[in-house]
Amino acid sequence: MHETGAILLTLFAIFVAAQIGAEIAQRLKLPGVVGEIVAGCAIGPSALGWIQPSQIAAGTPLDVLAEIGVVLLLFSVGLETRLDDLKKVGRSAFLVGVLGVIIPFALGSLWAHGNGFDWTKSLFVAAAFVATSAGITARVLQELGVLGRIEARVILGAAVIDDILAMLLLGVVTSLQAGGGVNFGSLLFVLVQAVGFVVVIGWVGTRVMRQRAHWLDQPINPHSALTIALAICLGLAYLSTEFGLAAIIGAFLAGMIASEMHQREELEHQMQPLLALLTPFFFVVTGAKIELAVFAQPAALWMLLVVTVIAIASKLAGGFLGALSLGKRSALIVGVGMVPRGEVGVVIASLGLVAGVFSNEIYAVIVAMSLLTSIVTPPVLAMLLKHQQDEHIGTPSA
Amino acid sequence: MHETGAILLTLFAIFVAAQIGAEIAQRLKLPGVVGEIVAGCAIGPSALGWIQPSQIAAGTPLDVLAEIGVVLLLFSVGLETRLDDLKKVGRSAFLVGVLGVIIPFALGSLWAHGNGFDWTKSLFVAAAFVATSAGITARVLQELGVLGRIEARVILGAAVIDDILAMLLLGVVTSLQAGGGVNFGSLLFVLVQAVGFVVVIGWVGTRVMRQRAHWLDQPINPHSALTIALAICLGLAYLSTEFGLAAIIGAFLAGMIASEMHQREELEHQMQPLLALLTPFFFVVTGAKIELAVFAQPAALWMLLVVTVIAIASKLAGGFLGALSLGKRSALIVGVGMVPRGEVGVVIASLGLVAGVFSNEIYAVIVAMSLLTSIVTPPVLAMLLKHQQDEHIGTPSA
Repeated sequence: MHETGAILLTLFAIFVAAQIGAEIAQRLKLPGVVGEIVAGCAIGPSALGWIQPSQIAAGTPLDVLAEIGVVLLLFSVGLETRLDDLKKVGRSAFLVGVLGVIIPFALGSLWAHGNGFDWTKSLFVAAAFVATSAGITARVLQELGVLGRIEARVILGAAVIDDILAMLLLGVVTSLQAGGGVNFGSLLFVLVQAVGFVVVIGWVGTRVMRQRAHWLDQPINPHSALTIALAICLGLAYLSTEFGLAAIIGAFLAGMIASEMHQREELEHQMQPLLALLTPFFFVVTGAKIELAVFAQPAALWMLLVVTVIAIASKLAGGFLGALSLGKRSALIVGVGMVPRGEVGVVIASLGLVAGVFSNEIYAVIVAMSLLTSIVTPPVLAMLLKHQQDEHIGTPSA
Repeated sequence: MHETGAILLTLFAIFVAAQIGAEIAQRLKLPGVVGEIVAGCAIGPSALGWIQPSQIAAGTPLDVLAEIGVVLLLFSVGLETRLDDLKKVGRSAFLVGVLGVIIPFALGSLWAHGNGFDWTKSLFVAAAFVATSAGITARVLQELGVLGRIEARVILGAAVIDDILAMLLLGVVTSLQAGGGVNFGSLLFVLVQAVGFVVVIGWVGTRVMRQRAHWLDQPINPHSALTIALAICLGLAYLSTEFGLAAIIGAFLAGMIASEMHQREELEHQMQPLLALLTPFFFVVTGAKIELAVFAQPAALWMLLVVTVIAIASKLAGGFLGALSLGKRSALIVGVGMVPRGEVGVVIASLGLVAGVFSNEIYAVIVAMSLLTSIVTPPVLAMLLKHQQDEHIGTPSA
């Protein structure tokens, strides 16, 4: 009974801290996720100590809850991503996505190598520079009410491509890290395996779902679409770990497959309460892992500044160059829109910490960078979009 | 990465087994919960061994997930229970509820004491005879489309009173068990404390929620009603363990408080996906704890038969006597409707196992009894209701 009470108290503390953090962040016009991570930092071992380090180690109940939370989150991101939508957004989105991965990845790995990491580890560090947070970007655009604008469509399309590339990259660097040095044969094998898994599951799964969706109506259970989708999510999350990929890749693919169900909208709706309950555990546990003491050293603060500038500049450049065909101002909006890192960058940092690639210092820096990029983007994006709207008064926006 | 894979595989196996079990049960016209428990039994240590005993011990991730599942389940039961509804159903429901607790509790403790338990433990065993499953009963009535009938209202009202009395009883016997022998002073103290907690939280919480519900609209978060309700659920679940009561009592009270929110219907809706994901872990883990080997002994099988007969007869008698004012046939319907034990009986058996009161044999017997009462009731109830409908043809039902 008392053990039950203790874990319930911790769950309560985490959940409430996340809500308060998110609420404060949103009142400050920041994404809620920022507040949840900061809340985790505040109640974690670095500050209040309501969460002990032993409670968030691998395999603990809180760690498993956090894992379920992030798996469900990436599932829901996948759910908003149809294979067909990826084709429609076209050349601009593709260019933005690809350049927005290559430039940060290149600059990130150069910086990491310059700071004494060997190349394998540098690629891992660089992977954390890459991923734009589709969630944060979409939430910001939605709050501004500009989801219908051409820049918004390009940003969202590019964010999806970006996410997929980042995940592939993550799979590649994770396998590389597990396997040791840079062996181009194994690199190719890892790449083929990762691409193969993603393509086969994504393409075949989507096709099967389209043609056989009526199977899902067979069960008696009124929530069968949801439970089948969740089963696919857990199953593919597991399977992707068997392929050396992160669990969230499988979850994302499962979401993309589930987006072909005719119950897709209902599913998106049903995912909301699940995300509301479970994702806070991921972000709070993430925040609790940051060692604030790290930033007491000027060197670490300096590193944070450099990393954040590289992260912003490289992503801005990639987005701007990729979207130049839309005109300079729209390209700038797209570039800024791609800046926020979020879940995925934090996930990669967590994986790096668990795998022993990241020191506590670099982990703290990467997570703080993800926070900072998420914090600085929304006001700038809002200003640019507002400014353009004033200029174009009377001109219907595309 | 591999640890993540292992836990994801277990989660996947449990979730899929639960869905298959529930689907088969429902096709056999049985409550889905029966199938989930049987599925747990099948993949548990007794049979397939996909779940190891060490994975479901107290404090493990699966145990915590199961706990969250049952806490959410009782929260949602509370959500369907308004304080005012408890008053409306009136005298019949109250009589049915009280007699339906006293008679099984008396017969159960006599049986347990006759089987060599001391009185404290006998009362604990008897508590597992008491609780009607509001969930199973309601689901059966809903499937039959008779929720509007007078017998259905009495059954539901009585089931709620029954649930509260059973929970109080559980709190009392748990505290007694923890504190040692039967001390009437401490019994009174425990009783006052338990009743005080329930009354204060239930009454004051409900009142505050009625008058201050507009506070819930203050946060920016669009899901604030849900997150606040979940926070109250986790908080009261924890608090009730501090009062020596089971976590589910606090969760139930939280649900009753939340039922006063004007977002109640939306909440009921939002709870569905949460229950769909998390309650299977409770029922499967429950089933996995049954040691099938126990029933290889004729003595245990005989005990199961005796316990099930006592459980059915005592509840039937309580319901029948309590509802006699409705006429004999209606009273019989009410009596039968009260027979299914479910979640709560199983929860009490689990608590008894953890507290060391129940042997594996008696645990298996109690859980199997809960299963059997849930299995036999639906067909009998359907028959009685159908029969009466035929008799009353042309007469509008009250």
